[in-house]
Amino acid sequence: MTEITQICTTVLSRIKPNEAEKSRLKALAESIIARINALGEAEGLNIKGELVGSSARGTWISGEHDLDIFIMFQPDVERKELEEKGLYIAKKIARDSQSFEERYAEHPYIHAIFDGFEVDLVPAFKVESASEIKSAVDRTPFHNIYVASIIRGLEDEVLVLKQFLKGIGVYGSELKTQGFSGYLVELLIINYGSFVKILEAACEWKSGITIDIEKHGTLVHKDAMVVVDPTDPARNVAAALSLDNMCIFIDRACEFLKNPDEAYFSMKILEPLDDSNFIKILKGRRTSLLAIEFTAPDVVEDVLFPQLYKVRESIHEMFERYDFHVYNKSVWAQKAAVILFELESSKLPHVKRHAGPQVWSKEHALAFKSKYIGSDTFSNVFIRDGRFMVEIPRKYDGAKKLVESEILNCALGKHLALSIKKEFHVLEDEEILNIKDNEFRKFLRIFFEK
Amino acid sequence: MTEITQICTTVLSRIKPNEAEKSRLKALAESIIARINALGEAEGLNIKGELVGSSARGTWISGEHDLDIFIMFQPDVERKELEEKGLYIAKKIARDSQSFEERYAEHPYIHAIFDGFEVDLVPAFKVESASEIKSAVDRTPFHNIYVASIIRGLEDEVLVLKQFLKGIGVYGSELKTQGFSGYLVELLIINYGSFVKILEAACEWKSGITIDIEKHGTLVHKDAMVVVDPTDPARNVAAALSLDNMCIFIDRACEFLKNPDEAYFSMKILEPLDDSNFIKILKGRRTSLLAIEFTAPDVVEDVLFPQLYKVRESIHEMFERYDFHVYNKSVWAQKAAVILFELESSKLPHVKRHAGPQVWSKEHALAFKSKYIGSDTFSNVFIRDGRFMVEIPRKYDGAKKLVESEILNCALGKHLALSIKKEFHVLEDEEILNIKDNEFRKFLRIFFEK
Repeated sequence: MTEITQICTTVLSRIKPNEAEKSRLKALAESIIARINALGEAEGLNIKGELVGSSARGTWISGEHDLDIFIMFQPDVERKELEEKGLYIAKKIARDSQSFEERYAEHPYIHAIFDGFEVDLVPAFKVESASEIKSAVDRTPFHNIYVASIIRGLEDEVLVLKQFLKGIGVYGSELKTQGFSGYLVELLIINYGSFVKILEAACEWKSGITIDIEKHGTLVHKDAMVVVDPTDPARNVAAALSLDNMCIFIDRACEFLKNPDEAYFSMKILEPLDDSNFIKILKGRRTSLLAIEFTAPDVVEDVLFPQLYKVRESIHEMFERYDFHVYNKSVWAQKAAVILFELESSKLPHVKRHAGPQVWSKEHALAFKSKYIGSDTFSNVFIRDGRFMVEIPRKYDGAKKLVESEILNCALGKHLALSIKKEFHVLEDEEILNIKDNEFRKFLRIFFEK
Repeated sequence: MTEITQICTTVLSRIKPNEAEKSRLKALAESIIARINALGEAEGLNIKGELVGSSARGTWISGEHDLDIFIMFQPDVERKELEEKGLYIAKKIARDSQSFEERYAEHPYIHAIFDGFEVDLVPAFKVESASEIKSAVDRTPFHNIYVASIIRGLEDEVLVLKQFLKGIGVYGSELKTQGFSGYLVELLIINYGSFVKILEAACEWKSGITIDIEKHGTLVHKDAMVVVDPTDPARNVAAALSLDNMCIFIDRACEFLKNPDEAYFSMKILEPLDDSNFIKILKGRRTSLLAIEFTAPDVVEDVLFPQLYKVRESIHEMFERYDFHVYNKSVWAQKAAVILFELESSKLPHVKRHAGPQVWSKEHALAFKSKYIGSDTFSNVFIRDGRFMVEIPRKYDGAKKLVESEILNCALGKHLALSIKKEFHVLEDEEILNIKDNEFRKFLRIFFEK
């Protein structure tokens, strides 16, 4: 037995659901599906419960108690009716759960806790083929059918790869993580045949790597990785995977093959960064930290994080436009949301060189000169490299003031705009220690250590 | 009489040499030339004295007591002999002067003071045509012949234009000034016909403007302005003119035509910047100033300034390479030389992001990672935009230390390298006030006010 096989066996013994767990999940799924079908009959609705996702395919990791149960409607049903009736049925079922809440993706669904399992009850259309889907979730049953028929015997390989991706922090296709989805993992195993073969292949991957199992791809994608969906030739299953997460996988794959170690399969436990270490780090780096803190709007992470990323970029651009040099940036959110920037300095000189038109540009030249001659400037209007120039007072020589004054002019996204307009705080350097939250302090550690 | 004509008349009355001055100059020139010719005969040398330059053409400004007297040798004379004999004759003549010194351009010559006039005694070859010159100075007599034959009646226009250029600070083709040479002024007058017509034309100039009076240019030049030498089709008389000095002329020409004012014909009298104003400016701008001070090597300005400009650029590049942001730069030299930089800040964070190879670049990736893993860094090796990165301590987080440690690795030029190697000082902010020199303090004023 090679060292890698040994490690995989050990990992598997830890993550593979045992028979008791399997039975519990099976029993729960079956009872909920039976309830859906019975309710459908009672209400005169042509619907059917269906278990999809990793729990349906035997590729879920022990303790990962997520059940995706779809409430399938006929495709001729109006969308409005599907949403109303679907939610009605789902809520009726959820009444028997420990707790539940309504969530919203492309349309509303119910997230409930049954017996310690997290169950998503999702209304969907039962279309004839993946090319006829009316909503993104309608695709899932086709993934289920495709994978279920081929994955038999390879379930353990899927589990090991998933755990490896979890361990290195790139598992999950949510817009927060931008990592590998479960379906993508399954397709990779189907394509390459085993966990080790994927690692060997990844070690040769470059940005733009394309995998097309059914050889039926119809579109050119510009993503870091392209895996054509076997159930939909126009779709890239890896579209949500970021370049950097792909690169992390490439890097760790090569490393692991060279020096196999069980540690790759466990996420590092992070110590929250305490006040004194934060201050020590700050003094060592001698940069300026700026945190923009506000209440996270009450939306799902897949809505929240794209907006946070967008604001982060928009503020970054604003910093550069106002001559502040950005070293690092990141976002964090739980109840509060924080956008964090590390700047070369949060202070700039008060003087700023302002470039005007070319000397021979006639009216522009005249306008520029007449605007600045005799006004409150640091220098006369002068000529450099054929252009008029003048040195003027900088509008914002402090980054904090800039953000406080101009953040509402940044691209904020709908929900964040509302929240930030209500209230936000800009914290500088040690003021950031006012955020005591342990998870935030872990995030701070990653921010510095990477 | 228009306002402009009125101003020109007033200016002219101030700058045009009177009959007494003309006679004195004529008498001095004739006596020196006679001396050269007599000495030639006495020494058995086939040489002839010749007055060239503005004094020969009646285009010199009153009080501008410069006489260029050439000692013309036959072209078959060896260069070495011309240098030795030429210098011997020049020195013999200079013995009657108040003081004299040997200077060196393309070959050595004597600079002497006779009766308050500055006289350059320059050995040159009397070649048949400008295309046969053996040394750059040999061209001058041809310029003399060309201009003298056409300029008659336009001398006053030349004087007024020269004075205008002096007033706005762009007269003189020395490598320090990079402005308009006297010969260039004469050619412009010959081409356009009058001072006012040149101003009108300049108001339409753009970079690359080309004037070819004899329509015989043979080369394409990339200079800001091209004036083909009527005595040499391959030469650009305006080669030494910088883009910015041309632009200053364009700008002031337009301004003057719109609002004629005698003030354009006088250089502004600058007050030296005193300590308290320097400190006030520094506090207002909130930038960092860095002066590199050393002894100016004992060479003519045409050798010194190109080297100073070169060092300035080389240090500028070094600053940017080490992440210091340069706002302004300039050089000054008399006995001491100073290269002055204004930086956004003379301090940088101690941390620096160091970018490595792309993740899939195999050996490069390996080498980078093994170099930084476990070494003294601020962060782990991480991945950003498909590349490995690491945050490391910055080698120089202070600009002063950087210059002190690395200036000898900059491109210094022969003479400056010797001087700087011997001794240099880097002065920061208020330390610059240790340089008390009045001329330097005037330079400081220009540095800030522009």
